[in-house]
Amino acid sequence: MAQRLTDGARRSAIAGLAGWSEVPGREAIQKSFKFRDFNEAFGFMSRVALVAERMDHHPEWRNVWNTVEVVLSTHDAGGLTQRDVDLATRMNEIAG
Amino acid sequence: MAQRLTDGARRSAIAGLAGWSEVPGREAIQKSFKFRDFNEAFGFMSRVALVAERMDHHPEWRNVWNTVEVVLSTHDAGGLTQRDVDLATRMNEIAG
Amino acid sequence: MAQRLTDGARRSAIAGLAGWSEVPGREAIQKSFKFRDFNEAFGFMSRVALVAERMDHHPEWRNVWNTVEVVLSTHDAGGLTQRDVDLATRMNEIAG
Amino acid sequence: MAQRLTDGARRSAIAGLAGWSEVPGREAIQKSFKFRDFNEAFGFMSRVALVAERMDHHPEWRNVWNTVEVVLSTHDAGGLTQRDVDLATRMNEIAG
Repeated sequence: MAQRLTDGARRSAIAGLAGWSEVPGREAIQKSFKFRDFNEAFGFMSRVALVAERMDHHPEWRNVWNTVEVVLSTHDAGGLTQRDVDLATRMNEIAG
Repeated sequence: MAQRLTDGARRSAIAGLAGWSEVPGREAIQKSFKFRDFNEAFGFMSRVALVAERMDHHPEWRNVWNTVEVVLSTHDAGGLTQRDVDLATRMNEIAG
Repeated sequence: MAQRLTDGARRSAIAGLAGWSEVPGREAIQKSFKFRDFNEAFGFMSRVALVAERMDHHPEWRNVWNTVEVVLSTHDAGGLTQRDVDLATRMNEIAG
Repeated sequence: MAQRLTDGARRSAIAGLAGWSEVPGREAIQKSFKFRDFNEAFGFMSRVALVAERMDHHPEWRNVWNTVEVVLSTHDAGGLTQRDVDLATRMNEIAG
């Protein structure tokens, strides 16, 4: 099972993830992605869905037309793990 | 442009939409769909995305693994219209 | 690496897969899925894509509106393996 | 209904569509798109599916891992129309 990151590792990981920040009051990270339109937003979601299913690690996400708000945390571990950092990294790559 | 439904038409429409209810404090409707797993949930979202894009009317929705929480309202009209009712109807059909 | 099925195992597996048949002149299996419309066909493809990516085993497939023609074979193994049988089984389940 | 393009208009349109060519023996155009992996290929297909459904004009396409081979023609019109040119243009934009 994935281990929770230490405070230092968590802060350092978040600092390296463009656009991601800590969720207040919860050990989780969040980012709001903005796209040109629904087509581009849902194309992003389709690619991330494939990644998530392959990692067996899924986001909490909310879509309203061209925006996709994402929260990542590892429920089993009760906090942030390397899997969240990996998924956030892939999301940034896919969003280009 | 789509017209807001009258109070009577809105209540009657919602009564005919299995699982949908009014959002407290906002002229909108909501439903929480639950699926077997992420695969089934995202398959639902992919089909609804095609419908939404075709109607040019998009949901506010949130997905966490096997659940998809949806809110529908027509922003341009400042409330609920027949387009929301049509999209909700299609969502129910697709969810089976 | 996945092992090619023996002739007996291959025939027995295909016999158990509703709608699938051997591709003439090639060690592969095929099925043509038919749906109500493009929406339903692409919803099927989206779900199968998630399964394929998770298995890291992908179909050869062709879509024309409401039809999806699939060919499965394991390139690395030079023939049919249990992975093809597993993917075909999941496709049948998803097509319902 | 969409009108078949004249020979001149068809040639001129194809000349303007990077990577597209006429299908031998059939009034249709084709292109083979190549991506980094299945994830990117299927993300392309998801976005094109949304466009196709919105235009109510669908491709014939075949996917094998990172390749998507597309053929466009307008069945109702018995040949190539502006709708094919529009869909091909959007596909090129989406493929980036």
